[in-house]
Amino acid sequence: MEGHLTDGLVAVGANARERYYDARGYGRPRGDGVVLSRVEAAHLLYRGDLGSVDGQGIEGFLADNDDIVVPFLVYKDLRDRGFYVSPARERWVDDPEGAAFVVHPRGDGPWDGTVQYRVRVLGERAAVELGSLGDVVLAVVDEESELTYLRTDVPEITGTSSAAIDGPIEGHLLEDRVLCWAPPPALYERGFYGQRMDRDDDAVQLSLLEAAYLVGDGLLAVDGGREAIESRGRAVEGERFDRRLTVYRALRDRGVVPKTGFKFGADFRTYAEVDRVAELGHSELLVRVLPADAARSPRDLALDVRLAHGVRKRMVFALVDGETVRWRSIERLTP
Amino acid sequence: MEGHLTDGLVAVGANARERYYDARGYGRPRGDGVVLSRVEAAHLLYRGDLGSVDGQGIEGFLADNDDIVVPFLVYKDLRDRGFYVSPARERWVDDPEGAAFVVHPRGDGPWDGTVQYRVRVLGERAAVELGSLGDVVLAVVDEESELTYLRTDVPEITGTSSAAIDGPIEGHLLEDRVLCWAPPPALYERGFYGQRMDRDDDAVQLSLLEAAYLVGDGLLAVDGGREAIESRGRAVEGERFDRRLTVYRALRDRGVVPKTGFKFGADFRTYAEVDRVAELGHSELLVRVLPADAARSPRDLALDVRLAHGVRKRMVFALVDGETVRWRSIERLTP
Repeated sequence: MEGHLTDGLVAVGANARERYYDARGYGRPRGDGVVLSRVEAAHLLYRGDLGSVDGQGIEGFLADNDDIVVPFLVYKDLRDRGFYVSPARERWVDDPEGAAFVVHPRGDGPWDGTVQYRVRVLGERAAVELGSLGDVVLAVVDEESELTYLRTDVPEITGTSSAAIDGPIEGHLLEDRVLCWAPPPALYERGFYGQRMDRDDDAVQLSLLEAAYLVGDGLLAVDGGREAIESRGRAVEGERFDRRLTVYRALRDRGVVPKTGFKFGADFRTYAEVDRVAELGHSELLVRVLPADAARSPRDLALDVRLAHGVRKRMVFALVDGETVRWRSIERLTP
Repeated sequence: MEGHLTDGLVAVGANARERYYDARGYGRPRGDGVVLSRVEAAHLLYRGDLGSVDGQGIEGFLADNDDIVVPFLVYKDLRDRGFYVSPARERWVDDPEGAAFVVHPRGDGPWDGTVQYRVRVLGERAAVELGSLGDVVLAVVDEESELTYLRTDVPEITGTSSAAIDGPIEGHLLEDRVLCWAPPPALYERGFYGQRMDRDDDAVQLSLLEAAYLVGDGLLAVDGGREAIESRGRAVEGERFDRRLTVYRALRDRGVVPKTGFKFGADFRTYAEVDRVAELGHSELLVRVLPADAARSPRDLALDVRLAHGVRKRMVFALVDGETVRWRSIERLTP
């Protein structure tokens, strides 16, 4: 059969409806025929199931429509995995916004109106605004045309960690940390604040974030008070300090203990259930703190996700706007 | 005993030489006494082996000298691991440049003049110029005072990969990749150039870097030639494209096959011995391409090193200045 490109869609007439739509879920019916997106037409050309479009085969069609090469690679991969895939166009699917394709559950087709994944297609060089994630799968095509799928969600962050600490505890601000020479043991052992100088020593070193949080709660006394700690924090890391403190507080308020994620290149790793440090479990999340409008390159996302997966944690972005934190998570997906 | 701080050193008189230097490798002799660096003095105060410095104990001494808190934590950790450690001062050690401490081999002391590690101390927030690495160990103290050691080297990059490809092969530049619809099988199977469209299909997709390299070697023919590919590359990634092409060429010239490192968040992963793709081994290196004067935060280094370690590869930085590439590697170290 032969298709014709008009207004960005490829029309195929005669009995094409039965052959392409009814039997295999390509395009949408138009009378006895179908209209196909250019990506669908390219896939049919590539497979030899469509003869030509305005006289051209796959080579010529892709050469004339090189903006669809990247979505074509994703569409082909999803089809190869056995899914029916609908282009996310107005009136073709319910919620096309922010997606290129809707993948139907295995066994379902476009006529079922069901949704397994909403897929956004990205080249490896296009940065993605993190706030726009949460209900889409990112399909990233790297420079060598390999595909990576990243599932995004809006995670619930909750935990059961809470500890009664007797204060105020005396601390000394030394450069970018606070030393408590003789704090109550619960500070570290139950609250998991700071780090011991030595295993058999009472002295505990607090980070500036931990100190700022504890001073704000009236549990720590430092010369100059809250102001001294926060201004030291801003001196060493600028606005980032305030963003991180907002997220630190939000996590503690939710019963989750944040500790530094430095060894993982993140802001925090978190523990949802801290009763005693001596019985500490595995940390569940890696948290990266960013401004609300932050964008991140697919390459950086790939790095984050790969690392988090390797250490059996979930990668979470905390997007901060003033005192408001929005959470987004991202992980590898094999469709 | 009592010390006195003068000109940035702590002098201890009487029979201090025997007690501190001869027996335990602190400081340097001065007559019957010793002079100690402030960090060494702090360590002796902390351990209770020195009574006071100008009347102060550890709390007061650190409060007055808070610039030594971070090096003190590193010195203490290295001592705890059983090493003798010399402050890297002029005349105290042979090559103090760029280091804070010289760690002597286990069993050796400062009197032996031997060197196990040269250690540079970094807070987690200080960026480090990558070109300055290669013969130092970085000791990074994170915000919660935990220590990470990163060993740096100047790696030899060599391999045995080489493949005879018959050319020129016809290719089509489509957006940011090149499609070869019917290349000789050796292009992919022996040269490991590009990626097959399908396992049982001849068509190969080349990245712009691979295409630029092959066109430059006369093995690939594309409309517009080398200029068309390089200008497309610059259009999509600016100067970075030229830097990456320089490194791609340098690797191929050394018998090493670079493939995209996208899934690892790096520029390349590399294979030193490619004979046939069907018998491909494990890739050995992750390569990050950067300008010659690039600096990187300890947090980003920690992320790189953690990831590379997790996938059993070595992290290498390729620092590019025009056509010149300098190589630096970095990996975790447990002293």
